[in-house]
Amino acid sequence: MDHKVGVLFVGVCGHLSTTVMAGAIAVSKNLCPATGLISEKKPFNKIKFTPLSDFVFGGWDIRSCADSLNALKDLGLENIQEIWEIGQQIKEIQIKTFPGITLNAGMAISEISEQGHVFKTDSIKEAIEKVKEDIDHFKTENKLDKVVVINLASTEPQISELSGLSSMESISKLIDENQISTIRPSLIYAYAAITSRCVYINFTPSEGGFSGGLAALAHEYRVPVMGSDGKTGETLVKSALAPMFAMRNLEVLSWEGYNILGNMDGKILQNAENSSTKIRSKDRLLPHILGYQPHSRVSIDYVPSLGDRKTAWDFIHFQGFLNTKMTLQFTWQGCDSALASPLILDLARFGILALERGESGVMSHMASFFKSPWGIDEHSLEKQFRLLEDYCQKITDHTP
Amino acid sequence: MDHKVGVLFVGVCGHLSTTVMAGAIAVSKNLCPATGLISEKKPFNKIKFTPLSDFVFGGWDIRSCADSLNALKDLGLENIQEIWEIGQQIKEIQIKTFPGITLNAGMAISEISEQGHVFKTDSIKEAIEKVKEDIDHFKTENKLDKVVVINLASTEPQISELSGLSSMESISKLIDENQISTIRPSLIYAYAAITSRCVYINFTPSEGGFSGGLAALAHEYRVPVMGSDGKTGETLVKSALAPMFAMRNLEVLSWEGYNILGNMDGKILQNAENSSTKIRSKDRLLPHILGYQPHSRVSIDYVPSLGDRKTAWDFIHFQGFLNTKMTLQFTWQGCDSALASPLILDLARFGILALERGESGVMSHMASFFKSPWGIDEHSLEKQFRLLEDYCQKITDHTP
Amino acid sequence: MDHKVGVLFVGVCGHLSTTVMAGAIAVSKNLCPATGLISEKKPFNKIKFTPLSDFVFGGWDIRSCADSLNALKDLGLENIQEIWEIGQQIKEIQIKTFPGITLNAGMAISEISEQGHVFKTDSIKEAIEKVKEDIDHFKTENKLDKVVVINLASTEPQISELSGLSSMESISKLIDENQISTIRPSLIYAYAAITSRCVYINFTPSEGGFSGGLAALAHEYRVPVMGSDGKTGETLVKSALAPMFAMRNLEVLSWEGYNILGNMDGKILQNAENSSTKIRSKDRLLPHILGYQPHSRVSIDYVPSLGDRKTAWDFIHFQGFLNTKMTLQFTWQGCDSALASPLILDLARFGILALERGESGVMSHMASFFKSPWGIDEHSLEKQFRLLEDYCQKITDHTP
Amino acid sequence: MDHKVGVLFVGVCGHLSTTVMAGAIAVSKNLCPATGLISEKKPFNKIKFTPLSDFVFGGWDIRSCADSLNALKDLGLENIQEIWEIGQQIKEIQIKTFPGITLNAGMAISEISEQGHVFKTDSIKEAIEKVKEDIDHFKTENKLDKVVVINLASTEPQISELSGLSSMESISKLIDENQISTIRPSLIYAYAAITSRCVYINFTPSEGGFSGGLAALAHEYRVPVMGSDGKTGETLVKSALAPMFAMRNLEVLSWEGYNILGNMDGKILQNAENSSTKIRSKDRLLPHILGYQPHSRVSIDYVPSLGDRKTAWDFIHFQGFLNTKMTLQFTWQGCDSALASPLILDLARFGILALERGESGVMSHMASFFKSPWGIDEHSLEKQFRLLEDYCQKITDHTP
Repeated sequence: MDHKVGVLFVGVCGHLSTTVMAGAIAVSKNLCPATGLISEKKPFNKIKFTPLSDFVFGGWDIRSCADSLNALKDLGLENIQEIWEIGQQIKEIQIKTFPGITLNAGMAISEISEQGHVFKTDSIKEAIEKVKEDIDHFKTENKLDKVVVINLASTEPQISELSGLSSMESISKLIDENQISTIRPSLIYAYAAITSRCVYINFTPSEGGFSGGLAALAHEYRVPVMGSDGKTGETLVKSALAPMFAMRNLEVLSWEGYNILGNMDGKILQNAENSSTKIRSKDRLLPHILGYQPHSRVSIDYVPSLGDRKTAWDFIHFQGFLNTKMTLQFTWQGCDSALASPLILDLARFGILALERGESGVMSHMASFFKSPWGIDEHSLEKQFRLLEDYCQKITDHTP
Repeated sequence: MDHKVGVLFVGVCGHLSTTVMAGAIAVSKNLCPATGLISEKKPFNKIKFTPLSDFVFGGWDIRSCADSLNALKDLGLENIQEIWEIGQQIKEIQIKTFPGITLNAGMAISEISEQGHVFKTDSIKEAIEKVKEDIDHFKTENKLDKVVVINLASTEPQISELSGLSSMESISKLIDENQISTIRPSLIYAYAAITSRCVYINFTPSEGGFSGGLAALAHEYRVPVMGSDGKTGETLVKSALAPMFAMRNLEVLSWEGYNILGNMDGKILQNAENSSTKIRSKDRLLPHILGYQPHSRVSIDYVPSLGDRKTAWDFIHFQGFLNTKMTLQFTWQGCDSALASPLILDLARFGILALERGESGVMSHMASFFKSPWGIDEHSLEKQFRLLEDYCQKITDHTP
Repeated sequence: MDHKVGVLFVGVCGHLSTTVMAGAIAVSKNLCPATGLISEKKPFNKIKFTPLSDFVFGGWDIRSCADSLNALKDLGLENIQEIWEIGQQIKEIQIKTFPGITLNAGMAISEISEQGHVFKTDSIKEAIEKVKEDIDHFKTENKLDKVVVINLASTEPQISELSGLSSMESISKLIDENQISTIRPSLIYAYAAITSRCVYINFTPSEGGFSGGLAALAHEYRVPVMGSDGKTGETLVKSALAPMFAMRNLEVLSWEGYNILGNMDGKILQNAENSSTKIRSKDRLLPHILGYQPHSRVSIDYVPSLGDRKTAWDFIHFQGFLNTKMTLQFTWQGCDSALASPLILDLARFGILALERGESGVMSHMASFFKSPWGIDEHSLEKQFRLLEDYCQKITDHTP
Repeated sequence: MDHKVGVLFVGVCGHLSTTVMAGAIAVSKNLCPATGLISEKKPFNKIKFTPLSDFVFGGWDIRSCADSLNALKDLGLENIQEIWEIGQQIKEIQIKTFPGITLNAGMAISEISEQGHVFKTDSIKEAIEKVKEDIDHFKTENKLDKVVVINLASTEPQISELSGLSSMESISKLIDENQISTIRPSLIYAYAAITSRCVYINFTPSEGGFSGGLAALAHEYRVPVMGSDGKTGETLVKSALAPMFAMRNLEVLSWEGYNILGNMDGKILQNAENSSTKIRSKDRLLPHILGYQPHSRVSIDYVPSLGDRKTAWDFIHFQGFLNTKMTLQFTWQGCDSALASPLILDLARFGILALERGESGVMSHMASFFKSPWGIDEHSLEKQFRLLEDYCQKITDHTP
């Protein structure tokens, strides 16, 4: 066993996982600066995080891996030879992809799954065992003892009966009784990861990967867990802007947000049952920050020509002194995977740090990374960030 | 003497002063809610501030007062009868306006001044004495002992030799030697206000109202002073958004801001010598918040048809992970006087509070109200706001 | 009988009708210029149109009339006394409002109807007779022989079986067999108007007011008809911009349009069955102008705080030379009734002109006024406008 | 001599020329569709234009040629191997670049010129002779008899005394008297091209390339000339949108346009003397289309991080019925060279067509390609386009 650290992605063949791996390679080779990585910036860079070159990647997918060059073309790297070489390295990783789980994943996800890439089973228990075996195999093959499992898969439909996930006991019951219709694949990966003593991170809004039961399980198995739903674009801007209205006692009358995007994420979110999960996650912050619920809307539409370039238009109608109405509009044009991937590397690093420090359960100081922060009801970006700064302060104060 | 508090505006006939007075009347009569006033909101509303109905208004101007109904029409009040009545009350106040000072005010300002509304003098000392007499007269007539003087006049040209303002002694020298070419009217009002033991607030970017010398003078005379340049629109949004890029380690490549407005403020700012003062004030925050200076621009153009409805378009070009370039644009459409006027009432209230608590010199905890906060180099809106929260906490902790 | 001309609105109590009447009054009294009226502009002003002061207004509604002052407040008139007087004049007109028809109007419309304002019947024939009697009564009372009936009512749900409207015979059959479920109120008003020899104008997208059968009926009764769906905002801009892409051989990949509005129109369009009628009408022009169907979207959402101030954001993704992708975005912030009302006065004038000239059937030269121009498949604004110019040229050439 | 056609660029090493050549190569090899080329689209594709593979490229420059791969990277081609091969072909062309002329080109342009790439002379006559020799040499070497000369160089400062360019005689006088201070390089290239019987196209706003004298000269030498200033971005949109306001009798109060760009064009336009030439050209169309001059602005700012990706924000404030004020904003994000280059190939084709048809002097039917159309005062895009359609109609009617 050595200093290397494993990172296993649920959805390792996707655009996002590919970008995470490309970024880890490019930054460790100094092909580009560490822009976007918090862990490389003051004051966090005082902490000894896992070097990016020490990450060993792998994961599961329900589809074959597309040409990784495709995912890299739209990003900002300029040297064609270098892009090609990175693409080759990623290809070698993706060859070893484990088949994924589609047990009750819903129509939209099942439809994109491919023959030979799905582990077929009707048993929750069997599915969990399979994922745990994959983790063990990955550890042994790469001589690792520390592994982070990160869910980057498409958004699943909502779970009808969330109470089943509220405690360790109720989850055990779901598994024992093989209640397929009330679980989702996200629960299977999360359960397997935690009980295999991996750090577990739910970067998606899928509800199976984020519950009271899992939090308790993480305490029991002494591993840190984090989530949910990476805050990368429109919601990030909202969490920076909404406090401004509160701090000026300006009344938000309406906050209408329209998102258009063209990647696989967008394609899956075309389906109402999947998008409702996402929208619920994105629409959470306004009442928390403002103290009241203005008229608000979060819509997500699939526009194939955009590819990974997501655009959001937000229209904010507000009322000020003497009942005067005014507006603020913003247009956010981001590259989804370029925004999300440094967060994922940061989360993996903070996850390993917590594991090494013996912390377990929900890491609520990671709130600034998530649309639906697990373990705390704080949505203001700056206040969330302060939690992280305080955490870091505590660590560095006690480090000689 | 009673519980009433005097508020004297430099520029009492302008759109902004008129809106401040209209707001104070309308809110105290319950014609509209106190939206926009921080002092009426948690946690600040625990403090006993001066009731709005206890403010007695007055001031100086270099022009005759325009029809105040004109200024109120574009705001959000709906009852025509009520608007008319408020207009009448303001008219009675504005009848008593003192003539203003134009000593070395620059071409643009001198040109809008009107015969019979300017106190003619070639002596700085005489000008100061005149302002002090006006203050005394106002106090006596209204039986007041506490007065706040607030500069709301048009932006003056920059001062060539700022070192003359750096200490009490150097200012005394300027006055004694009657160095007209190195002072501006803003200095005269500030000096007169402080030495008359008034709270002084510089809501403009004019440099005469904001210096080391004035800060020392305020200590000497045991009065609180605040400034400079009210943060109401584009800069407010910038100070909420810029920290987001820092908190995500995203590199801002270019931040281009274009402001268009149509009121008197905009008309004066058409002149390069006046607008450079303003632009310097607006362009200060990015290097402080980001830690480096991106390519940036703040332009202000006069578009008469807009009236008091200011519009700003900001284009932010930034670079993220793997050198990927992205953009954020926002369009801010605000009503300038509706945004500024509650800040002015809040500042007056905090000013009187400080005076009563025996605080003197620069009130740096008021940073969130200003584009160029006096006494502290903090530009992040949330961090500035925390200073105010901490100040309030301290007060309320010691109040039974 | 004299030179006066009657104008009857379906929906006479609405925001839009109120604004039309206010505009006719204000312009004829010279309280504001005729901005927005084509008929007052070169080259059309060479034609002798009905003076605005010769219009006599009236109409039907299913609700009581709201305070007309409310509708006028947000417009650009400034003199409060004048606004009040106009409001009084409109009130006198609206007192005489005829009860409206809700026969198979759909849930959303029926729900806003008020007791005592609906003519109750289960018979199509009876409903038609009632409307015809109202027209006769209006003519007699006001000593008119020329009347224009204009549908300004809320958008109705689509009609399931449009083939029933394709000929005069099929419409007669619908009426004879009293097939309530395949008609809508719009058909009843249109049928009554045409057979009462009125000019008929369908300013809404409601399908009952716009069909082959009605066109034939208009020929039979020798009256001009026009429609459908006034082109006032987003679609107007689209019809000006889309030809640009065609003229430059740029390929539109996606054209996504998001509309938010807060008036009664928006409230009714919250209902999917009503909005689908509207969206079908708005989404018609791109394939006609471009020659192919890009990915496109027209969404309409209700945002109450906006009132009559409609906002549209359109995002156009296009591809140029060497497959290079680019974007154009626009934000349209219009006052719906101020945009639509001059069109309505122009349409009434052109309608009376055609009637006097003995023209009958569909007036396809009016295409530039409509989202779904009746009688011609031309959607480019400039090409539509040329039809009107040519029509005007023909008339003025033959006038001494 | 054969069917090949020469195309000589003033500024052959720039981003734009490189893109033109890349496009000609890529489209003739079927590596991408002919999107953006009017000449390949109905109804123009009925005309027999020069095949793109028959163009032989060359030209002048005052700088060494940068790596052409750099210019191609940001465009839409995806196959890396193909991009590389195109880059090689362009490199071979650019090796033969003739040194350029900087005689009175102004500071900004002189500063970017490089040693060994400038033909040094103090004589206008000598400079003209040099350019004519280059043309001859290019013709002989490539066995061509038809050549198009296209000015794509940076915008020059305005010419103080335009009357010197008004007739053939006055231009001859300038040359004979060697009045260096009243000519610019653009005049030298234009004069040499026309007197060498080349088609001449002024794609820039530089005033030396566009005058009454040159028009007369073109008639004398029996060659077609076209210009000025390619209409590619913001002005294109304006010329499509402005007629909408005229067609609806809506009064434009203010039209404010802000352009930001980061290429060499933008760098040169940082200089006030260069940008005034450009702005004059861009600001011409509103009074022509609207019939009055609204408040308007065209500003151009250099934002290096944008590279060739130009962004324009236009804010249009307009007044409609009942004095109601409304706004339209648009943001145009275009790739400058991808927009301009197909126009240049179209212009070359139409130029050769006119030459073959024996047409000479100013080709005013090409107005839709230019911001300052030479020979006609029409600025509405659609009306300009109709001129081209009519021209094409005339030709195809007479073709069997």
